[in-house]
Amino acid sequence: MDTRTGLPVVGMVGGGQLARMTHQAAIALGQSLKVLATSPEDGAALVAADVQIGGHTDLSALRTFAKGCDVVTFDHEHVPGEHIRALAAEGVAVYPPADALRFAQDKQAMRERLTALGAPAPRWRPVADAADIVAFAAETAWPVIAKATRGGYDGKGVWVVIDEEQAVELVATGTPLIVEERVALRREVAVMVARSPFGQVAVYPMVETVQRDGICVEVIAPAPDMPTDRAVAAQKLAIDIAHALGVVGLLAVELFDTGTDLLVNELAMRPHNSGHWSIEGARTSQFEQHLRAVLDYPMGDTSLTAPFVVMANVLGGEADGLSIDERLHHLLAEDPAVKVHLYGKQVRPGRKIGHVTALGDELDAVRARAVRAARWLSEGR
Amino acid sequence: MDTRTGLPVVGMVGGGQLARMTHQAAIALGQSLKVLATSPEDGAALVAADVQIGGHTDLSALRTFAKGCDVVTFDHEHVPGEHIRALAAEGVAVYPPADALRFAQDKQAMRERLTALGAPAPRWRPVADAADIVAFAAETAWPVIAKATRGGYDGKGVWVVIDEEQAVELVATGTPLIVEERVALRREVAVMVARSPFGQVAVYPMVETVQRDGICVEVIAPAPDMPTDRAVAAQKLAIDIAHALGVVGLLAVELFDTGTDLLVNELAMRPHNSGHWSIEGARTSQFEQHLRAVLDYPMGDTSLTAPFVVMANVLGGEADGLSIDERLHHLLAEDPAVKVHLYGKQVRPGRKIGHVTALGDELDAVRARAVRAARWLSEGR
Repeated sequence: MDTRTGLPVVGMVGGGQLARMTHQAAIALGQSLKVLATSPEDGAALVAADVQIGGHTDLSALRTFAKGCDVVTFDHEHVPGEHIRALAAEGVAVYPPADALRFAQDKQAMRERLTALGAPAPRWRPVADAADIVAFAAETAWPVIAKATRGGYDGKGVWVVIDEEQAVELVATGTPLIVEERVALRREVAVMVARSPFGQVAVYPMVETVQRDGICVEVIAPAPDMPTDRAVAAQKLAIDIAHALGVVGLLAVELFDTGTDLLVNELAMRPHNSGHWSIEGARTSQFEQHLRAVLDYPMGDTSLTAPFVVMANVLGGEADGLSIDERLHHLLAEDPAVKVHLYGKQVRPGRKIGHVTALGDELDAVRARAVRAARWLSEGR
Repeated sequence: MDTRTGLPVVGMVGGGQLARMTHQAAIALGQSLKVLATSPEDGAALVAADVQIGGHTDLSALRTFAKGCDVVTFDHEHVPGEHIRALAAEGVAVYPPADALRFAQDKQAMRERLTALGAPAPRWRPVADAADIVAFAAETAWPVIAKATRGGYDGKGVWVVIDEEQAVELVATGTPLIVEERVALRREVAVMVARSPFGQVAVYPMVETVQRDGICVEVIAPAPDMPTDRAVAAQKLAIDIAHALGVVGLLAVELFDTGTDLLVNELAMRPHNSGHWSIEGARTSQFEQHLRAVLDYPMGDTSLTAPFVVMANVLGGEADGLSIDERLHHLLAEDPAVKVHLYGKQVRPGRKIGHVTALGDELDAVRARAVRAARWLSEGR
């Protein structure tokens, strides 16, 4: 409890854009997010009042950080489970708990658990050696998808394996892997749910996530042309997974849409890129919702604030000599209603440096505005 | 320019809730608001990364603060004009400029200027001695309204004077005064406009401001039952005043609505309580708009995001032993869609400690929700 305000202190391990945007939500709730950042130049460290510089794999830094926090939570999934357990054993409220978070840290554990729960998913197999991949491909088909069990993000740690030779090569790197069938997918969608320690849940409308080169470039809320019963079933699935895994905070369930089925692709347990649209597009943003969940506050309304909301990521691009500030000027002149979120990052090609959100009544128009706005900020045209 | 981000640095003098909420808007624009606060416990000082503790009447503190800022602006109107002129003379971009701000600092200067502009206003008179008040009352009627030319806020610095005896008593205090007729008003309304150095303006819909004991308790957007032509005329008046006075940043024009006329009551040149509804209720919040204006960015869309938006101030109350955190729990359970903004202040009876915003399609229901939410936070019931 912050004695200056009588309100709780949430600490977030990781100082990236998720912590940065969570700080904005914390301010409204009368709080000030405490941030454990790797560098003083991390996006959240640039804007938060209470920042500790330290590593998220350093138990002693985590212990120091946890002092004075009512709850500790995460902006990424890279804190070792044994550190989380150590903190919890010492009486720190850490959410999500290690026993839940491991299903977002380890893809094999996630696949095993989802299989046990009977959740719809691609066929998959643990991989001990290249022969496992070859045998799996014989049952399904080449190519198959190999995934590093740990540490993948934004298309990293995922490989399309077309034959035995590639399988041998990949296994030889020593990366622990699982293998999955390559699903003939029509598109990807996602459902976000928040769960509190009390067990209250709040689920957001299903969204479509548009990927390019393994990176999410656009999110459309609600997912267009999705039969209501299928969307509701996926929302129910997300809730069931959150309960079964004991998630506290946000759970993003990423799904493949085959046109007839929705198959679970990935789980994330934190604010997620697929939920950035909610800042303006839902009555309660995912960042506020995450704070409410980990604090065991009652959950907020997840209704859409407009018929269609589209978020587009801003990737660092070649901008013909225009500074980011000049690009922003041009964009704001071009579209006075688009909402901009810049993360305070140095621009590097392909790096997510921000996002934009447009909303309105006509999906095509809203989508065109979001895409154009993101391109202005990326490329200055 | 912040070399870490390539984006500008705005410094705000004053560390209250206006700076606190401006910091939230700055974060989205890739910035981090620099704050000159009186105390480390000021609302904005609790949440901003770059805080200097110092007095707003201390020129040397202001000079130090201005270093590294691209623009300096204000969360209140109490910085002496000569200090603003000194900074400007040294090359600091300070907005609003001293020559504009003085009309928000000095009610006599404001009345003289508005009279010269032909803006509709209550009859008024400068006061040199009690006889001036008596003579003015003879022309209009007792009671009259006496106002301190400087330093008034939230009903402070305003007196209802019923007779010569009270006039003599008040003048004897030595407070520089003007006197105004007591307008038979039906209600109060306000119009907010932002203006950039380039001269671009953006005006918000007219709102009704509901006052109790001289303190704004509710703001209703848009002002109900206001003939369109009269609302548009007031918006045009606000724009004309902003141009004529050379305002840069926000200008709030508070007006008396007599039922047939709209008379200018007060001017404020900063984010204003009458604009807090815009955080969720307008496409561009007043805080983002103020930043855009002082940075000479293009102005943002001021459209409403819902048919009706109601903001209610949360005043510190007697809460029967319930802590602010407990009251917040109850409120969030009671109304999952209301938006809460707490300012990080110690609760003191009558002090503005936050605000709540509700929005929707039915004014009566929206208003009831906002009022109930504010009462929950004030009184715990």
